[in-house]
Parts: sequence; C-alpha cells; structure tokens
Amino acid sequence: MNNAEEALKKHEEWKGKIEITCRAPLETTEDLAVAYTPGVAFPCLEIQKDINRSFDLTARSNLVAVVTDGTAVLGLGNIGPEAGMPVMEGKCALFKKFGNVDAFPLCIRSENTDDIVRTVSLIQGSFGGINLEDISAPRCFEIEKLLQECCDIPVFHDDQHGTAIVTLAALLNALKLTNREKENISVVVNGAGAAGTAIVKLLISDGIKNIIMCDRKGAIYRGRDGQTPEKEEIASMTNFNCRKGMLSEIIKNADVFIGVSAPGCLTPEMIRSMAENPVVFALANPEPEIFPKAAREAGAAVVGTGRSDFPNQINNVLVFPGIFRGALDVRASKINDEMKIAAAYAIKDCVSENELSKDHIIPSVFDKNVSSAVARAVAEAAVKTGVSRLNN
Amino acid sequence: MNNAEEALKKHEEWKGKIEITCRAPLETTEDLAVAYTPGVAFPCLEIQKDINRSFDLTARSNLVAVVTDGTAVLGLGNIGPEAGMPVMEGKCALFKKFGNVDAFPLCIRSENTDDIVRTVSLIQGSFGGINLEDISAPRCFEIEKLLQECCDIPVFHDDQHGTAIVTLAALLNALKLTNREKENISVVVNGAGAAGTAIVKLLISDGIKNIIMCDRKGAIYRGRDGQTPEKEEIASMTNFNCRKGMLSEIIKNADVFIGVSAPGCLTPEMIRSMAENPVVFALANPEPEIFPKAAREAGAAVVGTGRSDFPNQINNVLVFPGIFRGALDVRASKINDEMKIAAAYAIKDCVSENELSKDHIIPSVFDKNVSSAVARAVAEAAVKTGVSRLNN
Repeated sequence: MNNAEEALKKHEEWKGKIEITCRAPLETTEDLAVAYTPGVAFPCLEIQKDINRSFDLTARSNLVAVVTDGTAVLGLGNIGPEAGMPVMEGKCALFKKFGNVDAFPLCIRSENTDDIVRTVSLIQGSFGGINLEDISAPRCFEIEKLLQECCDIPVFHDDQHGTAIVTLAALLNALKLTNREKENISVVVNGAGAAGTAIVKLLISDGIKNIIMCDRKGAIYRGRDGQTPEKEEIASMTNFNCRKGMLSEIIKNADVFIGVSAPGCLTPEMIRSMAENPVVFALANPEPEIFPKAAREAGAAVVGTGRSDFPNQINNVLVFPGIFRGALDVRASKINDEMKIAAAYAIKDCVSENELSKDHIIPSVFDKNVSSAVARAVAEAAVKTGVSRLNN
Repeated sequence: MNNAEEALKKHEEWKGKIEITCRAPLETTEDLAVAYTPGVAFPCLEIQKDINRSFDLTARSNLVAVVTDGTAVLGLGNIGPEAGMPVMEGKCALFKKFGNVDAFPLCIRSENTDDIVRTVSLIQGSFGGINLEDISAPRCFEIEKLLQECCDIPVFHDDQHGTAIVTLAALLNALKLTNREKENISVVVNGAGAAGTAIVKLLISDGIKNIIMCDRKGAIYRGRDGQTPEKEEIASMTNFNCRKGMLSEIIKNADVFIGVSAPGCLTPEMIRSMAENPVVFALANPEPEIFPKAAREAGAAVVGTGRSDFPNQINNVLVFPGIFRGALDVRASKINDEMKIAAAYAIKDCVSENELSKDHIIPSVFDKNVSSAVARAVAEAAVKTGVSRLNN
C-alpha cells in the first residue's frame, strides 16, 4: 500500500482525527440537575455578572480555534476551506497530544478579509485563543493584525510565527556550533511569504542585524518597483546597503541561508559561494530547496529541513502546543515578541551542550520536555510583559 | 451545600463539560506521516476534487454546532453569549451521551440577524448540522429560515422543534389514555414564543385542526391590532371562528391545554372550565403554569411538565440526540416535517401499551431505546422524502 492509499484508508476509518467527549457525569437525574437544568443556571448567572468567569466555568480557558480559509494549505495552495480540514484536524490532534490544549478546527467559506475577521471576531467568546492556519499571504498579515485589534484573546498565525520561532531556535544552536555571534552574521532569507516575513522580523527582534530577503525577483530593497506594502516594510528593516540582484548574487559570502521558498531554489554553486562553514536551512516542504546530502557536499556545515526523514527537522509542532499552553496557563491577552523569543530560547535549550551536534541542533518533535519548557518560558514572559490576566 | 453552590463548584472543577480528544495515533514518526504531513495531503486533495468526501474524511459527518447568541437562555432571558455557554456545553454533553453525536458549542457576539446568519453560513463546511439554541423570538424564526436557505446541512432550532416534537409525542399518548381522536380535539396553546409557535405548526402538520393560541393579550386571531408577521401567520392557521378574549375565556370546554408561557398562567378555575378529563401540559420551566397536584385536584386527567421531579417530563432531550443521529446517519440535507413527525411517533411508541398510564405517557430521559428509535424513524423518513444524500 502506498502513502496515498494508506493515508486515505486511515482517514476513512477515523472519520475525523478529533472527537468531542463529555467530561461531566450524566447517569442520573441528579447529574442532569447539576450539569444541565436547573443547576446550570448558576454558572450562567455568574458569567453574566463577570464575563471573565467564563474562563473558570466553561471550556474556553483551554480551548483554541484552528481557523483556515483553505487558501494556502501545506504546499497544495488554494484547495478550498473543506479540503483544508484534514490538516486542521491534524493540527488539533497535535495540540492535544503535545500541549494538552483542546483545539477545534473551523474552516471559513470566504477568502474576503473582512468576512474572515468578522466571523472570528464574533465567535471569539467561545475560545481562549485563535490559531490562524494556512491563510495565504499577504491577506494573512492583515487578517492577523485586524483580529489582534478586535480580539481580547491571543491571535497567532502559526505559519508565520511558529515557523519563525523554531527557525530562530535552530539558528541559535547552529551559530553556537559554527562559532558565530548573532550580532555579526549575514543572513539571506529566500521566500517572502508568511513564514519568511515572520522569520525576518523575529530575527531582527532578537538582535540579528544583517539580513536580506529575496523573492522570485531577487533582493527586496527600499523603493523596488511595484512592491506590496508588506515587502516595502521588510525592505525598510533589512538590506541597509540596498543591494540588488538575484539570490545567486546576494548569497555570496552570506553566513546563513534560510529557505522558505520552493524545491531547487538553492544550488550547490550558491552554497560554495557562501562564507566558510555556512548554515543552510532548506525548509520548503515536502521537497526542500536543496537536499541535505547535496548541501553538505557543497560545504554546508549545518543543514536543517522541515522533514522528519532527515536530521534537524525544523518543524513548528515544536512551537504551537507549548506557546498556546503557556499563553492559556496565564490567560494571556496576546502573544507578543517577548513570548515568541522566550519560546525560541526554550526550544534551543532543550538540546544540551552534550547533545549539540551538526545532526542535532533542534529537539525531536517527540521530545516530551519541549512543550512544557516552552509553556513555562512563554507564561513567564507573558507575566513579565504584563499581558497575563490572572489575578495574582 | 445548596444547588447553586454545588453547580458552581462542579463547573469550576470541570472547566468545561466537553473536551476535544484525539482519535488518531501520534506516537511515532510514521503515525505523524499518516495523520499529518505528508500523508494528510491525500485526503485534502480528495476533498478538493469532491467536497462531499469531506463527510468521509473529516469529523463533520458526526459533528453538530450548537449555536447561540445568548438572548433567551433557559428562563433567564438575554444574559449574553458567553453566559449562555454552560447551557450550550450541557447540550453538547447530552448530544454525545444520548446520541453519540459530537457537538461543539459556539456563541456569537451579536444579536443582529444578518451577523448570525452570515457567521453560521460561513463556517457550515466545518459541520454536518447546525443546532440553534436559546435565540429569542421572533428573531429565531427568521434566523432559522435564512440559514435553512443558505446551508446545505440540517439547521434545527431545538427550542422550537425539539419541544414541539416531544409535546406531540406526549399528546398522542395522552389522547389515547383519555379516549380522544386527534382529529376531534380542541387545543389551547398558551405562549407565542419559539416553542409555542412550533408546537402549533407541528400539531397542524399531524392533522390536529382545532387550535387556538393565546399570548399575554389573549387569543391570537386574524387581523388583531399590531400583530407581528409570525403571529399573523399563526392566526391564519388557527382559530377559524376568530374567537377573541383572554385565556380564561378561550380555555372553556377545551380538551387540551399546552402552556409554554409563565408560572401561574393556569388556574384551577380554568381547568374546571375545560372539557371533562382534560389534558394539561404545563411546560414553563423551572416553575410550571400550574403544579401537577393542583392541576389534578382541579380535574386534569393527565398532567405533564418539563421537570424531572414530577411524572411525565416532557423534555426535548428525548428529541435532539436522536433526530440529529438519524439525520447525520443518512447525511440528510435538512430536517423536514415528515422527519419531525416520525420522531414524535417513535418517542410515543417507546411507551408500550402495558406501560402507558396517567403517570407514564412519555419515556424517561434515561431510556436507552429512545434515541436509537428516534434515529431509525428519522433516517427512514429522510430517505422516503428524498433528503438523504447517501449514495445508495
């Protein structure tokens, strides 16, 4: 049986990778009188008096909506809202498995920004957090921004920030291995979608200064013709020497390549033109910008991909269960940069000095310590930055 | 510990009466490759080709949204969306317990009809059915109607139809006990909200002809001053002699009283003015229109209430798990009158000839046979009326 057949067969058997189960006993008339009418009136009235009590008396304190419009699903593109749902359910299953977070998948039958924002905004009272997923760029940026403005719970676009956080974690360890200081490195990020944009911003937030982003037209720089506002913003934060040219030119002498682009974008020649012992993260999925063997043969000192069948899997499953676990634990109103950076450092630190090697810069997705370490760090950062709403 | 304290304490312990659990194994890299990337791409592509496959490959074939705006919660009135959620969660728990239906609670932060319709319509692809709950009249009528027009899955306002179905079931058995034929009885329905309106319509659908509905101003008749369109519609279907007057006048010589109104609306004097051996359903909750003891002392032959602490509990928990179970089982596109009437007759028949008595006209909510009997009857009616979408 091949992969496609097995995946289809299993999905047909499961009829849903998640299930809603009942936590309250409902065996007797007395049970019903507590969980349902007439007893249920009392928690209702309690929440009516103070809406914050909904976090104590309903499921929302541990509940995240995983929301998509199906426009940028995996590497498949715009396949429609219903077709995106197997991925959303998978995400919800991972939320539970790795973060003990209850997550529920919702797809929205509209690609219109206002529709999506309005829909999520109107149902936010049912949840403790919103995880946006597989929404295409540049719409994802505005949708996230507008939702963060109108929601009183965390709104987190995982394709952006989850990827950025795990990439920063892996990069910090790769820099340690190759004896580099983050303040002095030059980084090329190839691919200007959701992930690339967030990676650039988070790297800058953590003090990395010399970054150039490339898209299909080459380096992004201030005033480039016909550039979206999002790319113009990136241009204003990067490429201070206003370098122009295609990736093959820009990558020369760079210390780090981070690809969130497409298969084959990075050639062995390009790696040979980089600084000595370069770091190469080829994160395009499922087929990376260059395969690890070819990258290493061309001189890459450390190679990471998004795949589980190569060493150094840079996958955001290391991030989202823990970051929401931490945010929910302290009832955070948002997930800010400090919390994201705290998450990256917590992941980085899950690889001990002894374990750290070229084939082990990032913990396994099955490492049980990661999610709780991330949660602790994120909760702490939330409290420090004043976005926790716990009364203590 | 009193009821309020116990209900609050339990709700605080539960932190949600429902929970999302994971049905797919996620222990190994191979598990992840099937349930998540890269295997998940295949069910996604399958649904992209044929959207109906989402019923085979995701949770939606067994998933119902329980949606409220919090405007008419229990007897508490408009307490707000978040405050309604303990009831919605209770409902979801009952859906699972009694119908093995996965149900998920959603509250909407708007009382605007268009907002609610648009929101539910945009997320319908995530579900196999929509159960509207605790939305105030007359908005509930238009919201349900508009949603039925724009949704390709069943939309069912339980406060209307669940109550109507279980009332019809109880009434049919009460008529048998008091030797009446449904074609010849006169019925007074007191209370013109969601439940009352649906009861009148379903009784008419099942062949009961002589009905008068009363509200606070007395009998509803054609052309009554300042009447809503909904009441004018009811007027056109009932009260063919155009009787006017308050309940105390209208109820004289009636065979059946059905109250979905308020405590104290029905007096012993009114019961004494009814036909001999009248049937009295005092369904106001938690305090009925008249208490059973007083009703019987005034001559009522059969008395039903909504409460579990008296005989003959006429509660829609006998309906909604089974009706959605049946609709989902045959992938019905809607829940039509034939399905509703089939549900009522199935509930009625759960009380055998031997068991039928003045204190047992309706099965217990814990009767395990009810939900499956309702489901079978509803599925059969759906197939017969051509609203099943199963390919066979």
